[in-house]
Amino acid sequence: MSTGRLEAFSDGVFAIAITLLVLEIRLPEGWEEDLGGALLGLWPSYLAYVVTFLLVGMIWMNHHRMFHFIHRTDGLLLALNVLLLMDVAFLPFPTHVLAEALHADHGTQMAAVFYGLVLVIGGIFYNAVWWYSSSGHRHLGGHITPAEARALRFRWGMGPVLYLVATVIGAFSAIGALGFYVLLLVFYMFDMRPRRQAGERPTVTAGG
Amino acid sequence: MSTGRLEAFSDGVFAIAITLLVLEIRLPEGWEEDLGGALLGLWPSYLAYVVTFLLVGMIWMNHHRMFHFIHRTDGLLLALNVLLLMDVAFLPFPTHVLAEALHADHGTQMAAVFYGLVLVIGGIFYNAVWWYSSSGHRHLGGHITPAEARALRFRWGMGPVLYLVATVIGAFSAIGALGFYVLLLVFYMFDMRPRRQAGERPTVTAGG
Amino acid sequence: MSTGRLEAFSDGVFAIAITLLVLEIRLPEGWEEDLGGALLGLWPSYLAYVVTFLLVGMIWMNHHRMFHFIHRTDGLLLALNVLLLMDVAFLPFPTHVLAEALHADHGTQMAAVFYGLVLVIGGIFYNAVWWYSSSGHRHLGGHITPAEARALRFRWGMGPVLYLVATVIGAFSAIGALGFYVLLLVFYMFDMRPRRQAGERPTVTAGG
Amino acid sequence: MSTGRLEAFSDGVFAIAITLLVLEIRLPEGWEEDLGGALLGLWPSYLAYVVTFLLVGMIWMNHHRMFHFIHRTDGLLLALNVLLLMDVAFLPFPTHVLAEALHADHGTQMAAVFYGLVLVIGGIFYNAVWWYSSSGHRHLGGHITPAEARALRFRWGMGPVLYLVATVIGAFSAIGALGFYVLLLVFYMFDMRPRRQAGERPTVTAGG
Repeated sequence: MSTGRLEAFSDGVFAIAITLLVLEIRLPEGWEEDLGGALLGLWPSYLAYVVTFLLVGMIWMNHHRMFHFIHRTDGLLLALNVLLLMDVAFLPFPTHVLAEALHADHGTQMAAVFYGLVLVIGGIFYNAVWWYSSSGHRHLGGHITPAEARALRFRWGMGPVLYLVATVIGAFSAIGALGFYVLLLVFYMFDMRPRRQAGERPTVTAGG
Repeated sequence: MSTGRLEAFSDGVFAIAITLLVLEIRLPEGWEEDLGGALLGLWPSYLAYVVTFLLVGMIWMNHHRMFHFIHRTDGLLLALNVLLLMDVAFLPFPTHVLAEALHADHGTQMAAVFYGLVLVIGGIFYNAVWWYSSSGHRHLGGHITPAEARALRFRWGMGPVLYLVATVIGAFSAIGALGFYVLLLVFYMFDMRPRRQAGERPTVTAGG
Repeated sequence: MSTGRLEAFSDGVFAIAITLLVLEIRLPEGWEEDLGGALLGLWPSYLAYVVTFLLVGMIWMNHHRMFHFIHRTDGLLLALNVLLLMDVAFLPFPTHVLAEALHADHGTQMAAVFYGLVLVIGGIFYNAVWWYSSSGHRHLGGHITPAEARALRFRWGMGPVLYLVATVIGAFSAIGALGFYVLLLVFYMFDMRPRRQAGERPTVTAGG
Repeated sequence: MSTGRLEAFSDGVFAIAITLLVLEIRLPEGWEEDLGGALLGLWPSYLAYVVTFLLVGMIWMNHHRMFHFIHRTDGLLLALNVLLLMDVAFLPFPTHVLAEALHADHGTQMAAVFYGLVLVIGGIFYNAVWWYSSSGHRHLGGHITPAEARALRFRWGMGPVLYLVATVIGAFSAIGALGFYVLLLVFYMFDMRPRRQAGERPTVTAGG
C-alpha cells in the first residue's frame, strides 16, 4: 500500500476526532435561570477543548512530518499506525472526563492522570511507528539521512516522557498539568517559527 | 508541508463541523402527544441550523479562495490555521445554545452575543492567516498581485467587523442578529454571481 | 474553483451524514430485563437506517455522475450545491423522527410526511444544480451532448416527483411510504446493472 | 466511475465509523463519588472499543487490498460496496450494546450474538464484492492472476465463517467471543509481518 492512502485515512481520523471534541460540551440543567453564568461555568470544558484540540493538531503536524520521510509501508507499520489512531480517536473521552471533573470539582487529579496516560500511550505508539520505520532506514527515502533519523528518535522520544511528566504533575494538580500542556504548546509553536538562516533544514520537534 | 495536505485536513474539519450541526436538533419530551406541533416548535433549531450551515459554507468557500493564492506554508501558518479550525469546529455548541435559548425564550440575547463572539474570533484567526501569508507577499504565488492581496485584506477584514455588528445587534435582539446574518448571506451570494465582462478577474468577497 | 475540491467536500458531507445515522439508534430504558426483545423492538430504527443509508448512497452516486459531466464551477453553482448538502446533512433528524414515531406508534403519518418533504427539497436543490449547470451547456464539458443533458433533466427531474408521491403515500401510511422507497431503490439498482450491448453509453437514472 | 472516488468515499465511511465508537463511552451516573472506580468499571467499554476499532481497521486494510486489484466499477459493484459500508457504519451500535450488556452483566450472550451477526453480514457483503468483481476476472487488472483471485476467494471467504464461529461462541460466553476476536487479530497481525524471501508476493489474508 502506498503511504498516500495511509495518510489520507489517518488525516480523516485526526480531523474527525478533533471535531467530535465539541460534542462533549453540553449546557447544564437549569441554564434557563442564568445562561451567562452557565456559559461561564463551562470554562473547564472550553479549557479541555482548546488544550486537546491543539495537542491533537500538534500530533497531526508531527504525523505529517513523519510520513514525509516514510516512503514505504508494510503490514506491521499499518498495524502500529492503527494503534496510534485508536489512541487519538479515544481522546474525546478523557477530555470529557477531565472537563466533568473540573466542573464538579471532584476527582480532578484522577481525571488528569487518566488524560495524561492516554497521551503517554499515544506517544509510545507514535514512537513505535518511527522506530520501526527508521530502524536500519527500513522504510525511509532519500529525504533524510540516518543521522537525522536518529536525531528525530531522540526528539520525538521526548514526547511520551513529557506527557509522563504532565501525568505526574496531574496526580497533584489537574490545573498544573493543563498549564504544563499549554507550556508545551507554546514552546512547540515557538520552535516551529520560520528560520531565516541560509541552508537550515526543516525543524523537527518533540511531540507525538 | 504542501498546502494540499493542509487544505484536505481543513476541508475535513469544515465538512465534519457542518455535518455535526444536525446532532444538536432533538425531539422534545412529550412529542408523542402532538408530533406536528413538536416539529413546528423546533423552528429555532432549524433556523440556527440553516444560518450556521450557510455561514460555515461561506467561510469554507473563502478559505478555499485564500488557499488558491497561498503557495507555501510554514509552522506559524499551520498553527494559525489550526486556531481557525478550532473556532469553526466549536460552532455546533453556540448554535445549540442559540437554538435552546430561542426555544425556551430565555437568555436569547446572551446566546446571540455568545454565538457572535465565536464568529468574531474565527474571523480574526481567518484574517491572521491572510495577513501573515500576504505580508511582504510572503507565501503568495503569481496568481495575485500585491495590490490585489491588499484589497483582499480590506474585504476579508470586513468579516469580523460585520460579525461584531451582528453581536451588538444580538445584545438587543437575537432575531435581529439572525436577520442580519441572513442579509450577509444573501449579499454574499449575490456578490458571487458570475460576471460576464471580458477580462474580469475572479470576485473576492468579505467574509471569513 | 476546480470541481475536484467541490466533489471532495461533498463526498465528505455525504460520508459523514450517512455515518451519523447510527447515532440515532439507542437502546430503550429497561432493556436489561429482555435484551433480545429490546433489540427486536428497534426494528423501526433499523428500517429507517437502511432506507436512509441506501437513499443517501443513491443520491451520492447520482451526484457523482452529475459532476462527471460538470467541468466548471462558479459561485452560484457552489451555493446551490451547499444548499443540497445542507439538506442531505439534515437527513439524520427526520430519520430519527420517523424511527421514534414508528416505535411509539404515534404520529407515524406526520413523521413520514416530514421525512418525505426533506427528500423533496433535496431533490429540488439537486435538480437546481443540474438545470443551472446544463442550461445552455453552461458548465458542461465534451462528455455529454446537449440532447443527453436534456434527457438527464427529465430523468433526474423525476426524483422530487417520486419523493412527493412517497410523501403523499406517507400521509396515509408510513409503512406504505417506506415500501415505496424500497421499490425505488430496487428499481434503481436494477437500472444500474451493467449492459452488454456494444456501444451503449453509461446509464443515467432518475434520482436526486 | 473510477475506483479512486469509490475508495475515497469508503475510506471516509471507515474513518468516521471507527472514530464515532468513542461517543458510545460515557461516564456512569454517580461517578463523582469515586471517579477511579467509575473509570475502571468502564472496562467493558474499553474492551469493546479496542476490539471493534481493530476489527474495522483490519477490514479497512483488506478493503484496501481488494481495491488494489479491482480496476473498474459498475453500478452493481457500487451497490454491493454501499451495502458493505452500511454494515460497517452500523457497528458502533452493536459495540455499544455489547459494552452495556457486559457492564450491566445482563444479556451478555444475546449482545455477543448480535455483535457477531453484524460482522457475519458485513463479511458476506465483503465477499460479494470480491466474487462479483473477480468472477471471470470481470473487473480485475493485471496485478493479479485468476489463480490468485481464486485463492483470495477462499482466504477472504474464511472471514464470515470465522465470525460465525465467534457468534456461536458468543451464544455461550461473550468474553469467550471477545477472546476469539483478539486471537483473530493477533493471527492477522502476525500474518501481515514482512516476508524476506525473494520473489514473494504480497500476503493476502482472511478477513472482511
